[in-house]
Amino acid sequence: MIHTEPISQVFYIAVYDITNQKRLPKVLKTFRKYMNWVQNSAFEGELTAKQFQSLKDELLEIINKEKDSIIFYYAEEQKHIGKKILGVEKNEITQFF
Amino acid sequence: MIHTEPISQVFYIAVYDITNQKRLPKVLKTFRKYMNWVQNSAFEGELTAKQFQSLKDELLEIINKEKDSIIFYYAEEQKHIGKKILGVEKNEITQFF
Repeated sequence: MIHTEPISQVFYIAVYDITNQKRLPKVLKTFRKYMNWVQNSAFEGELTAKQFQSLKDELLEIINKEKDSIIFYYAEEQKHIGKKILGVEKNEITQFF
Repeated sequence: MIHTEPISQVFYIAVYDITNQKRLPKVLKTFRKYMNWVQNSAFEGELTAKQFQSLKDELLEIINKEKDSIIFYYAEEQKHIGKKILGVEKNEITQFF
């Protein structure tokens, strides 16, 4: 029997401010490969270290580092982050499963 | 001597999607009373339970609950949430202190 370590994932929330309408769809397309869209300007998802590195690398190829801004908040354990919603829940997670 | 319990604060990140240009400035004004603007569509800050309740009450007076969406992510201890930024750091926290 082969025992493998479980691959640890980190829970990420990403918010972005892309100042150019040509770059925006490329950024969205990249995010959607790795994370779930939850709202205008926000994605969330669990990523391995390798996935997060790939996402970052791909985003850095697209964004203008002098003008655009992407913030990743993260927690090693998702249970440490709570979530409350006012108004509509817009996420499209149902489309992913 | 009077011993008082320290007032516990929770660290919040708020992302919002306000679909009407008249409501947006009111929402922003309300957020700014309680939290720090960090990016287009995101605020963060530490709030007591009472402050969070007031913020929610004020926002619910402004937003259209059928159309707008505000998500609060939160952690009891800020150390549980990390933050990484790609591109520009746009926050205006320096204006608040």
